[in-house]
Amino acid sequence: MVTLDQIVQYAKSTGFIFQGSELYGGLANTWDYGPLGSLLKKNIKDAWTLKFQRETPNNVLLDSSILLNSEVWKASGHVGGFSDPLTECKSCNQRFRADQLIENHDNTLNADGWDTDKMYQYLVEHKVPCPNCDKSDYLPIRKFNMMFQTYQGVILEQANQIFLRPETAQGIFIQFKNIQRSTRKKIPFGVCQVGKAFRNEITPGNFIFRTREFEQMELEYFVKPGTELDWFDYWKTYCMDWLVNLGLRKDDLAFDDHSPEALSHYSNATTDIKYRFPWGFDELWGIASRTDFDLKAHQTHSGEDLTYLDPESNERYLPYVIEPSVGVERLLLAFLTSAYDEETLDNGDIRQILHIHPALAPYKAAVLPLIKKSHGEKAFAVYQMLSKYFDVSYDETQSIGKRYRRQDSIGTYLCITVDHDTEKDETVTVRNRDTMEQVRIPINELKAYIEEAVKF
Amino acid sequence: MVTLDQIVQYAKSTGFIFQGSELYGGLANTWDYGPLGSLLKKNIKDAWTLKFQRETPNNVLLDSSILLNSEVWKASGHVGGFSDPLTECKSCNQRFRADQLIENHDNTLNADGWDTDKMYQYLVEHKVPCPNCDKSDYLPIRKFNMMFQTYQGVILEQANQIFLRPETAQGIFIQFKNIQRSTRKKIPFGVCQVGKAFRNEITPGNFIFRTREFEQMELEYFVKPGTELDWFDYWKTYCMDWLVNLGLRKDDLAFDDHSPEALSHYSNATTDIKYRFPWGFDELWGIASRTDFDLKAHQTHSGEDLTYLDPESNERYLPYVIEPSVGVERLLLAFLTSAYDEETLDNGDIRQILHIHPALAPYKAAVLPLIKKSHGEKAFAVYQMLSKYFDVSYDETQSIGKRYRRQDSIGTYLCITVDHDTEKDETVTVRNRDTMEQVRIPINELKAYIEEAVKF
Repeated sequence: MVTLDQIVQYAKSTGFIFQGSELYGGLANTWDYGPLGSLLKKNIKDAWTLKFQRETPNNVLLDSSILLNSEVWKASGHVGGFSDPLTECKSCNQRFRADQLIENHDNTLNADGWDTDKMYQYLVEHKVPCPNCDKSDYLPIRKFNMMFQTYQGVILEQANQIFLRPETAQGIFIQFKNIQRSTRKKIPFGVCQVGKAFRNEITPGNFIFRTREFEQMELEYFVKPGTELDWFDYWKTYCMDWLVNLGLRKDDLAFDDHSPEALSHYSNATTDIKYRFPWGFDELWGIASRTDFDLKAHQTHSGEDLTYLDPESNERYLPYVIEPSVGVERLLLAFLTSAYDEETLDNGDIRQILHIHPALAPYKAAVLPLIKKSHGEKAFAVYQMLSKYFDVSYDETQSIGKRYRRQDSIGTYLCITVDHDTEKDETVTVRNRDTMEQVRIPINELKAYIEEAVKF
Repeated sequence: MVTLDQIVQYAKSTGFIFQGSELYGGLANTWDYGPLGSLLKKNIKDAWTLKFQRETPNNVLLDSSILLNSEVWKASGHVGGFSDPLTECKSCNQRFRADQLIENHDNTLNADGWDTDKMYQYLVEHKVPCPNCDKSDYLPIRKFNMMFQTYQGVILEQANQIFLRPETAQGIFIQFKNIQRSTRKKIPFGVCQVGKAFRNEITPGNFIFRTREFEQMELEYFVKPGTELDWFDYWKTYCMDWLVNLGLRKDDLAFDDHSPEALSHYSNATTDIKYRFPWGFDELWGIASRTDFDLKAHQTHSGEDLTYLDPESNERYLPYVIEPSVGVERLLLAFLTSAYDEETLDNGDIRQILHIHPALAPYKAAVLPLIKKSHGEKAFAVYQMLSKYFDVSYDETQSIGKRYRRQDSIGTYLCITVDHDTEKDETVTVRNRDTMEQVRIPINELKAYIEEAVKF
């Protein structure tokens, strides 16, 4: 299996992912998405939006602010409770999340929900060594709130303190009424949001897996109370199907249903879809049945009536909600990890190849003139025609063989070669990245051919 | 002409734009984009990306972090110089931008580049009245830095102070080398970025025109020194064409070329495309020839060589750059303002209609069963087929006439009605939003029909 280090090197050299602020020595675990990474990220977001919103007639989009009134985070519990248990090694002054120290020490344990005393006691009793200096002497654990703070307006005073949102979900809950009113949607319906969120993680890491700045794709699906567990199952399956249809192997995916004891107090069912990352199975997608916890909290805190009048039963109620929530960067890492491959060719050369689903491939096709001088003009015209519909690359340097390798290595699904016959019969050679098979196709059928290939 | 107030009301009632954090009384000039506004925003970004990147073979994408190493902002001059002249009325304690007070007092003046002493002197000498209380007694002007500050990591200390980016451009400059290396692009080439930026404006306002959180679309087009003014003209025309092709009227647009005295010190040519907003002509798109100012600043500050080796002339140089920079929200406001219309029908009813370009319309089409019970199933199948390719609405409540009005009012370009003949001959009635003409079209030609309509 590919190592994380291989992926990091590959991502940098090809232009998928660069270290953030690299020119100035970086900035702790920030990453920039280069020309290929930007396209892949965009394709992941488009693929999610296509299936979770566009093709789902009762789901709509929202694009709410990153900066919200701080009352939102008081109501949601983030001001009081969105914290990690922080401890510090007295010997080397490195800071750690206590729950992670415990779980790494004994991977059968789940310290979620332990209070800080219990965690501290465990660290002491089991003499859990510091991952950095191997001593075991920690400062008492304190709760560290993960929201980034900033100030809006012209005076640095408490009244203007605001937070960068740690999740996109609350933006949906506080606009629930406006959305329902303006769309006149009936329960069940969903609201989808894609956008940046920020968490001041104590220990970000594993490349783009856990970063302080990240992009979420969240659906809040509002349902009638009593029907939520059926919908929970529906969205579990829907999310898993989406991943598998886009090329992740079933063997590399697993549901981790939370046991009743491990559920958050507001949830009556939660699962994580875990993916086999290079370091082992880890969380990819969280799906939670959150009851009416959020709407109720905002109703209480704001004093506004957030109930929904069911036109069929004439009942008034606060809808329950199912929340599938996933990070774009984690998905990107999963897709890259799954698709990356090296093949040894007959001549001993290593062929680097990205077997990524065509819908996600940065370039659907590359248009190649066989000989630049003779076929360049025609090839460029083909490129221009296709670029109205798809992300397409135009590549005219070096031999055809080298260009094939280059396009394979960045996941380009089809290589379209324009040659001397093209002038005569308006056909081109189309080579498939995965099978390496070549077929001859009329130029005026290329669009439909690619359209068919990117379906999922 | 439509007033700003009409647009605000329209945007709220239809679900284009809601007040941010409205449930908690709002948060100074933040706005959330509802189901229709999210689609419109997405379509604007897609239309920009299509023309500035996808169809332009030497332009690539970047998606860099909002959080950057603070050295970036020292090098770029933002830490030292990205400030507005802030003053305060001693009488009512309202805060203002001094340059705006002066320009509003005498609209023939341009206070850009005046120092704070000169501005203060003007306020005193001309007894410029406070817009709030009408007195004229101001505190001395101080420079207020517009970058939002926050802290990263677990200690609130100076070392961890970072800023939310006030522009996306610097992310491009600091990754110039990585992008050029990984793509092997030759000068001239461009890097496009779409993303959030934040400016702690003293006086945000005019609805979504000036907000503290906003989304930029920036192109940095790197050229050989000496060719920059030709490229400046090229991109001026390109930007203007893009706007006109998407439906803005030429009469409502104007270039405002900066005079040599008004140019920033690093620029040898700058223009603003101004649009006729409801309050008058105002800045929509800035296009600047920035020489090698930014790359040179980062080269000096970082100590890294950022020069480019021209493979044709074998010269080494720092590329010059042309920067067309536009805000998504301003474009959205311009497109809404331009497209919004009210027509009085023969029966005296007012028909609200959004004549927005089909490429930007939230919904390209709405599929309507003539009679829900009889034609619902077939209509839904047509909806499902089209939703694979386009944002399409499905609307089955109330009379066809009312549904037409509803779709007109949100800019849906085509209404596709499934009726009793559809079962027989697989055709539907397609009504055009602008002409109200109806044609009969086979279902299997709908996709191509819409595809043709959204071209620009």
